[in-house]
Amino acid sequence: VSAVPLTLVNGQPASQLAALDRGVSYGDGVFRTLRVEAGVPRWWDAQIARLTHDAQHLRLVCPSPEIWKSDFDTLQVAESGVLRLTLTRGEGPRGYPFPAFPQPTRIVAFWPGAQTDSLQSITVRLCDLRLARQPVLAGIKHLNRLENVLARAEWHEADIREGILCDAREQVISGVMSNLFIWHDGVLKTPLLDQCGVAGEARAQLLERAQRAGYEVRVCQISLQDLFDAQELMLTNSLALLWRVARLQTREWLTPVISAHLWECLHA
Amino acid sequence: VSAVPLTLVNGQPASQLAALDRGVSYGDGVFRTLRVEAGVPRWWDAQIARLTHDAQHLRLVCPSPEIWKSDFDTLQVAESGVLRLTLTRGEGPRGYPFPAFPQPTRIVAFWPGAQTDSLQSITVRLCDLRLARQPVLAGIKHLNRLENVLARAEWHEADIREGILCDAREQVISGVMSNLFIWHDGVLKTPLLDQCGVAGEARAQLLERAQRAGYEVRVCQISLQDLFDAQELMLTNSLALLWRVARLQTREWLTPVISAHLWECLHA
Repeated sequence: VSAVPLTLVNGQPASQLAALDRGVSYGDGVFRTLRVEAGVPRWWDAQIARLTHDAQHLRLVCPSPEIWKSDFDTLQVAESGVLRLTLTRGEGPRGYPFPAFPQPTRIVAFWPGAQTDSLQSITVRLCDLRLARQPVLAGIKHLNRLENVLARAEWHEADIREGILCDAREQVISGVMSNLFIWHDGVLKTPLLDQCGVAGEARAQLLERAQRAGYEVRVCQISLQDLFDAQELMLTNSLALLWRVARLQTREWLTPVISAHLWECLHA
Repeated sequence: VSAVPLTLVNGQPASQLAALDRGVSYGDGVFRTLRVEAGVPRWWDAQIARLTHDAQHLRLVCPSPEIWKSDFDTLQVAESGVLRLTLTRGEGPRGYPFPAFPQPTRIVAFWPGAQTDSLQSITVRLCDLRLARQPVLAGIKHLNRLENVLARAEWHEADIREGILCDAREQVISGVMSNLFIWHDGVLKTPLLDQCGVAGEARAQLLERAQRAGYEVRVCQISLQDLFDAQELMLTNSLALLWRVARLQTREWLTPVISAHLWECLHA
């Protein structure tokens, strides 16, 4: 993925935004990351619906789907890459109160470069950082992401692809940049995200598609013990779609069980 | 306070910064707000030390005090107003990992307009939002401020000046934009900030100055009951210095006890 993205700010080609935008001052906004394949953003409608939902949760007026579509069309993207859609509460008077007449800022950025097109087996670690429990922000993909930044800074080993995060009560929540699924005794489970974590679109897609494919799925509390006891461990996000975990600390999972099939389900 | 601030980005007069700055993408940075009186920022050295401390806590390289001073001098401020110093981790490749060669962004903004120069008695409310407990970020004035934004959005009454925040265990932590002190049985108490909250410079100044003035001070857990039982309630921040709470819900505090003296201590 190239280091030089194409960017639009409020629909105009621009690489800058107001230095006093509330997105910078307070992380007051939401975002989504999309996989683009040959110019086509995957799960576009669902991602826009999720962005809109998250914005409304913060009482931020989200531009219509047509406006986001028009922004994407303006980029004239024909190749594969990564698309990030960001919405902030824009500028306003100094201080925490919402601006009386908010003018949200939308940032659309595209990084060209193909994502993987096959199931990858990865090594992961357990992070030391514990996610704070905040039901008011749980599940929302907002711009307050310091926990993820600090958790990702815990390791430098190039062969470790992702870190697993627990919350303050030692419940397993997610990866740093992915959602988590475990396969155990014929049930596909993913953590409840009512206290922390981000409800990714790939997670929602896998829940729906796996169920349609006949798997028993469950959204529930998952402990560290459940993780090590699982017959298979998988991580989802909108870019990789699905990773299979081959190793977590000293625990190894040598052969795929259902991950190859689930990757196909997601990729379809 | 005027709506049109003077702004510098990395020392240059500018009102914009990179749309993909990590300050926007993740709230990856820290800030401080200073009271400026006739061109002189109050508690400058201590505020710069605190900004530097907080940056280091996020493993962000903070520019030297001389650079911040040079930025402020560039503004050529002779009047009173509000100064905000912001430092972000700057731009970098897409994703959570720290950039290999970080180039932090500093934003210096000044809003002209005098702050109050006397002790004010204010009405406050209890916020519904509960602060998440996150020891890794507790006390740090970072850019992940959605909790403050959402708490401030809970009320619209112009006569309510501030909201009181508790954490998820019902411990009293602070105001939305201020630190809290209570006076009870001859002891000045302020909440421990080891789980959440922001350690403001006015709080540190009051702790030090009150002790020097002979008051017994204590940093400890404070419950809601302690709040209502207190003989006096005060809030501090770098702009107002100190507010006296005259009313919280139905509880009223009719006459100042030590707040007028503490305001003088802080103002000195």
